[in-house]
Amino acid sequence: MADLEKSKILTRRTAYLELEKRFARLSALSGASAILHWDSAAMMPVGGSPARAEQLAALSVLSHELLTQPEIADLLDEAKENTEALDPWQSANLLEMRNRWRHATAVDPDLVEAHSHATSLCEMQWREARANNDFVSLVPALEEVVNLTRSIATAKSERFGVASYDALLDEYEPGCSVTTIDRLFAELEQFLPDFLAEVLERQHHAPPVIVPVGPFDVAIQKQLGLEFMTALGFDFNRGRLDISHHPFTGGVPDDVRLTTRYTGDDFTQSLMGTMHETGHALYEQGLPKKWRSQPVGLARGMALHESQSLLMEMQLSRGPDFLSFALPRIKNAFKADGPAWEVANLERLFLKVEPGLIRVDADEVTYPLHVILRYRLEKALLAGDLPVADLPAAWNSAMRATLGVTPPNDKMGCLQDIHWPGGAVGYFPTYTMGALAAAQIYRTTAVEIDDFEAKIRAGNFADLIAWLRTHIHEYGSSLSTDGILQAATGKPLGVEDFKAHLRDRYLP
Amino acid sequence: MADLEKSKILTRRTAYLELEKRFARLSALSGASAILHWDSAAMMPVGGSPARAEQLAALSVLSHELLTQPEIADLLDEAKENTEALDPWQSANLLEMRNRWRHATAVDPDLVEAHSHATSLCEMQWREARANNDFVSLVPALEEVVNLTRSIATAKSERFGVASYDALLDEYEPGCSVTTIDRLFAELEQFLPDFLAEVLERQHHAPPVIVPVGPFDVAIQKQLGLEFMTALGFDFNRGRLDISHHPFTGGVPDDVRLTTRYTGDDFTQSLMGTMHETGHALYEQGLPKKWRSQPVGLARGMALHESQSLLMEMQLSRGPDFLSFALPRIKNAFKADGPAWEVANLERLFLKVEPGLIRVDADEVTYPLHVILRYRLEKALLAGDLPVADLPAAWNSAMRATLGVTPPNDKMGCLQDIHWPGGAVGYFPTYTMGALAAAQIYRTTAVEIDDFEAKIRAGNFADLIAWLRTHIHEYGSSLSTDGILQAATGKPLGVEDFKAHLRDRYLP
Repeated sequence: MADLEKSKILTRRTAYLELEKRFARLSALSGASAILHWDSAAMMPVGGSPARAEQLAALSVLSHELLTQPEIADLLDEAKENTEALDPWQSANLLEMRNRWRHATAVDPDLVEAHSHATSLCEMQWREARANNDFVSLVPALEEVVNLTRSIATAKSERFGVASYDALLDEYEPGCSVTTIDRLFAELEQFLPDFLAEVLERQHHAPPVIVPVGPFDVAIQKQLGLEFMTALGFDFNRGRLDISHHPFTGGVPDDVRLTTRYTGDDFTQSLMGTMHETGHALYEQGLPKKWRSQPVGLARGMALHESQSLLMEMQLSRGPDFLSFALPRIKNAFKADGPAWEVANLERLFLKVEPGLIRVDADEVTYPLHVILRYRLEKALLAGDLPVADLPAAWNSAMRATLGVTPPNDKMGCLQDIHWPGGAVGYFPTYTMGALAAAQIYRTTAVEIDDFEAKIRAGNFADLIAWLRTHIHEYGSSLSTDGILQAATGKPLGVEDFKAHLRDRYLP
Repeated sequence: MADLEKSKILTRRTAYLELEKRFARLSALSGASAILHWDSAAMMPVGGSPARAEQLAALSVLSHELLTQPEIADLLDEAKENTEALDPWQSANLLEMRNRWRHATAVDPDLVEAHSHATSLCEMQWREARANNDFVSLVPALEEVVNLTRSIATAKSERFGVASYDALLDEYEPGCSVTTIDRLFAELEQFLPDFLAEVLERQHHAPPVIVPVGPFDVAIQKQLGLEFMTALGFDFNRGRLDISHHPFTGGVPDDVRLTTRYTGDDFTQSLMGTMHETGHALYEQGLPKKWRSQPVGLARGMALHESQSLLMEMQLSRGPDFLSFALPRIKNAFKADGPAWEVANLERLFLKVEPGLIRVDADEVTYPLHVILRYRLEKALLAGDLPVADLPAAWNSAMRATLGVTPPNDKMGCLQDIHWPGGAVGYFPTYTMGALAAAQIYRTTAVEIDDFEAKIRAGNFADLIAWLRTHIHEYGSSLSTDGILQAATGKPLGVEDFKAHLRDRYLP
């Protein structure tokens, strides 16, 4: 190799290593933000809000400044010129770096700031509007958010050469597109309505569910949650469980902060919530150790992330094998007995299907219909085909058409979610993509792991977790979502396994 | 005024306002660090350490970069040229900004980094050395820290035009000097030994202290702490109480995080510890609201900070009026009775004087002697007059000479404190300056507040706290320590009130 060539390659390696240094710093700042976000939700006294807002804003502005420094563009170009000098993980890392940089530089900083202010304001007004069931008061602020989100989408669309909606989606699920989602959702829509009707008919003839009556001691609920988290292999040396109003998983991979909430009259909420967040948390704890501080070491996207939580909450925890392990423990913990505590009744409780108004309370059969409705509406909002003021009417008619229920008010209708006031357009579809992926992954583990059902019944989850580590978590972002699914399950994301799962579980 | 003049003043105002913006960002970053530090001590699982270290290092490096940007020097000069455009608080703020910038730019960044690495390493080795009672193993690392600290002191000394030790002291107690400390400590040394002998003699003839025997329920201890914090006016909307191995007060003024620790066999530690930290916390919560994000809004220095904690722990909490309010509540909380719980015995318990080996366990009479010993030794270390290897011998002989006790090992001698391994030279004197200030302030409040003793006995602390707010807390850093004391107590920091306090309390 000519000396000149050699020295070029050296420069490119050096450029790459310099990028690693800079992204490690960005990772540290984003880790700091993550812990502070958790603290805001789980620990902070109310008076701390203004100072916390300043702290988070400073971190976000600084990170943006660091990511958009002119040298970054040069370094990315230099490093890209000869990726032969890089190993596959480094190459994948370089792609991830470029994607982050692309998002950060595609939009005029003034627009980013205007959007950030508008969403903060709109979120605040949304809380009030929802409490007062007053959609009209939210219209101006929400229009502003939708307009600014559209401007961002346009700017990114032009820069990336993709459709506007795809440009937004790319932030949550890199590389995904309307084409893919339209196809998946169309298949679901073909299947779900008839299937739902059949399930409702079947459940109508089953014995009625007897809901266990509390009070359920919160300390016991917490103890149960911790017991199941431990059984699933959550590493408490690298994470903790706390309480917040809206359960979530935050922190950093070696310090995962998950939260749940307890209510004295229903133990299933905190328990299933904890299982859900534990799925997220195990993904984070299982990300590749070597790449902790680099973009390629992060979770692949929201779809896979949600697949891990739904795998725990929906696939595993509501299945008969897990229930036969868990129910005696739950019963014993609460020292409860009687007909409500019969295994058959509790199974019916955990698998009850019922079209309802609220997405977060929905069962796994009707949940995708909530998501599809939102996906259609947010595409129309973004395209300008649906004026914000017409949202309640559009929402209510879609609810009637897909789920057969009519919201009595906007509070239980189009005011229920924070996503749009927060400017998060393109996020909703990932919930259902996650549900599809969860089914696809879980059905593969059931085949590939010896004596799978027996192990679950015995409370032995080690093989399941090890399989997820190897086939999902440890890839980080080194492959695409479909790349990981292809390697793990033999095919890209599809609806077949989800349909099969629903049929097996609800119409056996 | 000529137009040119006007425009110059405008530029200077603009320069000042630009500085305010930049220091507000620095304040946000330092607030983020403060919460993350608290989290490390009170919440973080062990596995989170490496990621946390990266987060804190990134924040510290970035802050240093922002503070040392070349524009800052220009802005400071521009703003300084005509301080007539500024109001008194703004002028004071500008002085504080300059002092911070001076400290940040006085030392070569390589030296700062070397010092930071050396202290991290030495702190780690110190933990091991202390556990193993092995001073020799610490010598190389501690020599490195002392040498690098000396280099920093030299650089700052040249830049500031003050003595080396003063240059270090300035970080903890701005504007203070060896001259002042030497004078204060000389007066104490003239007084304390004879006084101590007399107190010991007096206590020898008093009835022996009966130590209350536990176990003391930790939940009750916590409840008691919260009760007294509330009585003192701690605002739980802007702060919280948690547990950590080493109690401290952290966070930010509107989100103060204080910690304590509980042991089942002694309730006095957590209680007095909580009172101490509450003093620190009330200072933070009382800092001027308008200047939250600026250097002038910060606590004046370590001496005044310690004065606020010692005022609560030593002046107030161990005095007869507070005890007559608190003891029935303590007794009632633990449902305790018997001779150990007689008021007279508990007073003797809280006022027991005894020369001992450990600074943090020392009573208020012997504490200054521990500090003076350290002050002398650290001055000698810094000057190079005392080789690190000779520290144990020097320590032990000084202990014998001043306190009449000989450490049986270095663990209970020169290995007990983290300050020197952490590179904190110039910090120790502020403990005793704080004790002097506490006495001076408390004796003023007792004169200026009507029916002071009766109010304390009734558990009515509102006037005391209001007085401290107005006369100490709300000054922030707008005056010097002596300036604040002069305004509050009619004189600069001195030893007379402390001596009078000790005489009144221990030799009535």
